[in-house]
Amino acid sequence: MSRVYNFSAGPAVLPEEVLKEAADEMLDYRGCGMSVMEMSHRSKVYDDIIKTAEADLRSLLSIPDDYEVMFLQGGASQQFAMIPMNLMKNKVADYIVTGQWAKKAYQEAQIYGKANKIASSEDKTFSYIPDCSDLPISPDADYVYICENNTIYGTKFKTLPNTKGKTLVSDVSSCFLSEPMDVTKYGLVYGGVQKNIGPAGVVIVIMKKELITEDVIPGTPTMLKYKTHTDAHSLYNTPPAYGIYICGKVF
Amino acid sequence: MSRVYNFSAGPAVLPEEVLKEAADEMLDYRGCGMSVMEMSHRSKVYDDIIKTAEADLRSLLSIPDDYEVMFLQGGASQQFAMIPMNLMKNKVADYIVTGQWAKKAYQEAQIYGKANKIASSEDKTFSYIPDCSDLPISPDADYVYICENNTIYGTKFKTLPNTKGKTLVSDVSSCFLSEPMDVTKYGLVYGGVQKNIGPAGVVIVIMKKELITEDVIPGTPTMLKYKTHTDAHSLYNTPPAYGIYICGKVF
Repeated sequence: MSRVYNFSAGPAVLPEEVLKEAADEMLDYRGCGMSVMEMSHRSKVYDDIIKTAEADLRSLLSIPDDYEVMFLQGGASQQFAMIPMNLMKNKVADYIVTGQWAKKAYQEAQIYGKANKIASSEDKTFSYIPDCSDLPISPDADYVYICENNTIYGTKFKTLPNTKGKTLVSDVSSCFLSEPMDVTKYGLVYGGVQKNIGPAGVVIVIMKKELITEDVIPGTPTMLKYKTHTDAHSLYNTPPAYGIYICGKVF
Repeated sequence: MSRVYNFSAGPAVLPEEVLKEAADEMLDYRGCGMSVMEMSHRSKVYDDIIKTAEADLRSLLSIPDDYEVMFLQGGASQQFAMIPMNLMKNKVADYIVTGQWAKKAYQEAQIYGKANKIASSEDKTFSYIPDCSDLPISPDADYVYICENNTIYGTKFKTLPNTKGKTLVSDVSSCFLSEPMDVTKYGLVYGGVQKNIGPAGVVIVIMKKELITEDVIPGTPTMLKYKTHTDAHSLYNTPPAYGIYICGKVF
């Protein structure tokens, strides 16, 4: 067997030892007589899996106690809506557009309020990161949004933007866990796991607790409120249990 | 190894031959040198997997060409919002409440319009299915909603309600593929796959094409419009690829 070392922009290679363990445990997870795909997400066995995954991620990224960790569904594309639905209290947000994903997030936010494009590198096909040291941050902006790594264009924020005190929201899908990061610089960091951490179908959201409230845009579905998920420790409904299990092995 | 035959209300047993094949293919899917978890959802190999899964489901349930099949995320709980957001053109829908899941769907629909509880068995702890042969269907109802099988209470609709010509929407999460069904009697049938078909994190929606339009409730996220997904054949963003692959094996 010849393994392909695929590290493309989308789903990419996983550690061979993770896949080997997953194969070995497929019919019987550690003597419990069933696959992780088959077990109740309310069982003691699964509770250990999801809690260990969260604890290991917290340890890897030194996530402080005043941040919640959520394992959600719908990919980054669903976060493009969830973020404004939950955070646009003043209905204003500033977007730095450095690639197609930031642009999609910016466009989606316009459904929910005034999304301002305060910087962009679209003039040169997203080939650079604009100077973000002194941007015209809106005085009433609820947050400043970036996509931190742009695989398609080969760019990455080397220093985070100066948000002038506003909450920083960052999509780290394509650089998640590739280097240390200081979570405390962000209000919300999120990423689809399929590039660096696990199988598609899981998105991890790390969010400052004080930002998680019931005060969301009217019409926000229950499943799209962060509070629904933090109140239930990512078990409000059946989670993407197998994907979380694989992520846990990668951590 | 002693396999547990778990057929509980939530995630439940999968066929052993499906799990064995998945274990065998974990490091190398049919000579392509990678796991299904690692491959691009835009690749030829994955395209075959998702198209075959859809074709096999269409064949199993004799799904006619004027129905779309979608593989989505977020579970039944997300459908509780997606259904009214997409179908409540008149902002009126009738719900038959026969258990906790139908009740949750009914409550969620109230966010988006006038949801009428036209029948319920809550008076006797959901221990029966009400007579649905002549219910007070609202003249302007956009649809009539049922949860077809209620595992917790041991009840199932043996005959479908008389909707007096209105679109029938049914949650079949816990009876999906357990017996033949006539898809043409429904406008929309959906189910989370984790009970009968595959791993949690995939929900299958079978929907009459004529019901899929851009005319949705204002503020509906792009990811929560059925049209987004049918236009892209369930590949608008990275799908829960591994879960769909397992479902395909079960079909």
